[in-house]
Amino acid sequence: MPLPTDAAQATSAATLDLSADVVTLTAAVCDIESVSQDEAALADAIEAALRPLGHLQVERDGNTVIARTSLGRAERVVLAGHIDTVPLTAAPNLPTRQVDGLLWGRGTVDMKGGVAVMLRVASQVAEPSRDLTFLFYDCEEIDGRFNGLGRLADTRPELLEGDFAVLLEPTDGAIEGGCKGTLRVEVVTTGIAAHSARPWKGHNAIHDAAGVLARLAAYEAATVRVDGLDYHEALQAVGISGGIAGNVIPDRCTVTVNYRYAPDKDTEQALAHVRQVLDGYDVTLGDAADGARPGLHLPAAQAFIEALGVPVSAKEGWTDVARFSALGMPAVNYGPGDPNLAHMDDESCPVEQYVSAEAALLRWLA
Amino acid sequence: MPLPTDAAQATSAATLDLSADVVTLTAAVCDIESVSQDEAALADAIEAALRPLGHLQVERDGNTVIARTSLGRAERVVLAGHIDTVPLTAAPNLPTRQVDGLLWGRGTVDMKGGVAVMLRVASQVAEPSRDLTFLFYDCEEIDGRFNGLGRLADTRPELLEGDFAVLLEPTDGAIEGGCKGTLRVEVVTTGIAAHSARPWKGHNAIHDAAGVLARLAAYEAATVRVDGLDYHEALQAVGISGGIAGNVIPDRCTVTVNYRYAPDKDTEQALAHVRQVLDGYDVTLGDAADGARPGLHLPAAQAFIEALGVPVSAKEGWTDVARFSALGMPAVNYGPGDPNLAHMDDESCPVEQYVSAEAALLRWLA
Repeated sequence: MPLPTDAAQATSAATLDLSADVVTLTAAVCDIESVSQDEAALADAIEAALRPLGHLQVERDGNTVIARTSLGRAERVVLAGHIDTVPLTAAPNLPTRQVDGLLWGRGTVDMKGGVAVMLRVASQVAEPSRDLTFLFYDCEEIDGRFNGLGRLADTRPELLEGDFAVLLEPTDGAIEGGCKGTLRVEVVTTGIAAHSARPWKGHNAIHDAAGVLARLAAYEAATVRVDGLDYHEALQAVGISGGIAGNVIPDRCTVTVNYRYAPDKDTEQALAHVRQVLDGYDVTLGDAADGARPGLHLPAAQAFIEALGVPVSAKEGWTDVARFSALGMPAVNYGPGDPNLAHMDDESCPVEQYVSAEAALLRWLA
Repeated sequence: MPLPTDAAQATSAATLDLSADVVTLTAAVCDIESVSQDEAALADAIEAALRPLGHLQVERDGNTVIARTSLGRAERVVLAGHIDTVPLTAAPNLPTRQVDGLLWGRGTVDMKGGVAVMLRVASQVAEPSRDLTFLFYDCEEIDGRFNGLGRLADTRPELLEGDFAVLLEPTDGAIEGGCKGTLRVEVVTTGIAAHSARPWKGHNAIHDAAGVLARLAAYEAATVRVDGLDYHEALQAVGISGGIAGNVIPDRCTVTVNYRYAPDKDTEQALAHVRQVLDGYDVTLGDAADGARPGLHLPAAQAFIEALGVPVSAKEGWTDVARFSALGMPAVNYGPGDPNLAHMDDESCPVEQYVSAEAALLRWLA
């Protein structure tokens, strides 16, 4: 039996109306569910909405959509945002609902408000003051090897190029410049196994770890000013394990240490610092990702700050701005939503923040 | 086709000839394989060898064999030994072989030499100076709930009763008195989880464990003289774990600590000491087993020491002598074999130690 016409229409592709106000558009973007690795429907809707706009060249790369102006302006600005979300809660936090000036639901903070702002700017500003590149990318919320922005940086780095980048991750409406780097090391102490009734025949590796933990507990992390912003460093144990049985003196103990370092250092310098702090111990590098300098002294960034007129601070956590930094571009985080509510069951955002963000970017770019 | 007569005889029950010399008998006991929970063949052979001896009352309890004299002597002495072994090595270390004065193979140290000495004494001394109880018990090498001596202590404690007990575990031919107690505690530090880029929003439980480890590393364990023997105490971390992810400030760290304490203390006193050392930390008792006083000042023990004329020291590890101590009986460890070779692939013992041990017990009891 063929489907009734109404039902057939209900299963057709979701669409986005870029002429709707930014709050309505944010809700519409959220209501197209797009958990990581399942972004095709939303990428299709974004591509379909942008293709008709004559001032943009639109490309598709997997579930990443790229849209660019080519007006020969003196500067090019990149606006980037991921279109995926973390999974929905058990009692689904979609569709969105607006109550007392707040929009509730998955993506309202991280980061479909930013995506909606990008779409509104793309549709409204046909003659921008600077050439614009919009990057709507997939798979930010999962393992970095799936990240759409990382994929583009590897395969088509020219699409990321510009004088300045804004990542529209939630910052509660402030500008957060650059980001700290992060590395993990394993610190291993070794001893000699023995029966715990006769410990003098062995050597206790867990007792030796006392010195490692004491240095970490006593460590006073630096606050480092980079390009005018203060980054608060941190050196913290994030894991420890040792011991093989309740009657055996342990011959090995491993402490995993995470160093979050200001973007004035690269991995090599950061690792050298950790080795200095833990001098005398066996330190092995695990993973590492350098941070990003904010570059707020550069003209493109200065114009952005002046146009927006919002507070400016350092970004403490690592974000995808580091991918632009790796290409030599200054980059900042700026977007609607309180980052403390990201990934929460009760994710929500004052709709006023969407309106303010759209207005701020239009002031800068229109 | 029926089996040939020779093969049929080869599958008949193994037997032990108690008139053989102690070295030959030790090899024969070892060659009846008896890994824990598979001791029936050896228990059968021991029972069959003892039943014909008119001066002994023989009982069977599971795979434990009990043999007793009832001569109305002023004192009763208990000789006890387990008949099970740890598993054989991949290339089986049985049958035994004698090379250059050493007997090699599973059980030659732990503790079939002691079992053979007990069997020789049982068969040779029909008129002992003290009444004798021989306990050949099963399942010592596995979880304590299977232990044959523990089972008897629970169900038929009268069979363990006496004025003095000798456990024929390997002591390299010395007398080792009593044993230390053992208890384990968990020491837990708690913090507040946070993103490791913003540790000031949390509290690091692993860093707090630095203080626990520092106290353990600095702790100077006492040497405690009990009934004339020196017990070396020990307080050692045997395990540590903490951390849930490489980017999260850990909110919990658990240190497992093993206290080996002299037999002048019971569990309650030992735990109070650990709590004092780790004052201010959250300490929870895990398992515990009290030690055993050597009681070497008691007349029955003094006579034993004088008759043997071998070195006397404290037993550091926990052994089944504690089961006698729990019944109010002094007990010592004395047997052939170097305990450092117990459970080793290359377990072996100078045959001279079997001969000496047999001679020493005969001096005392004949």
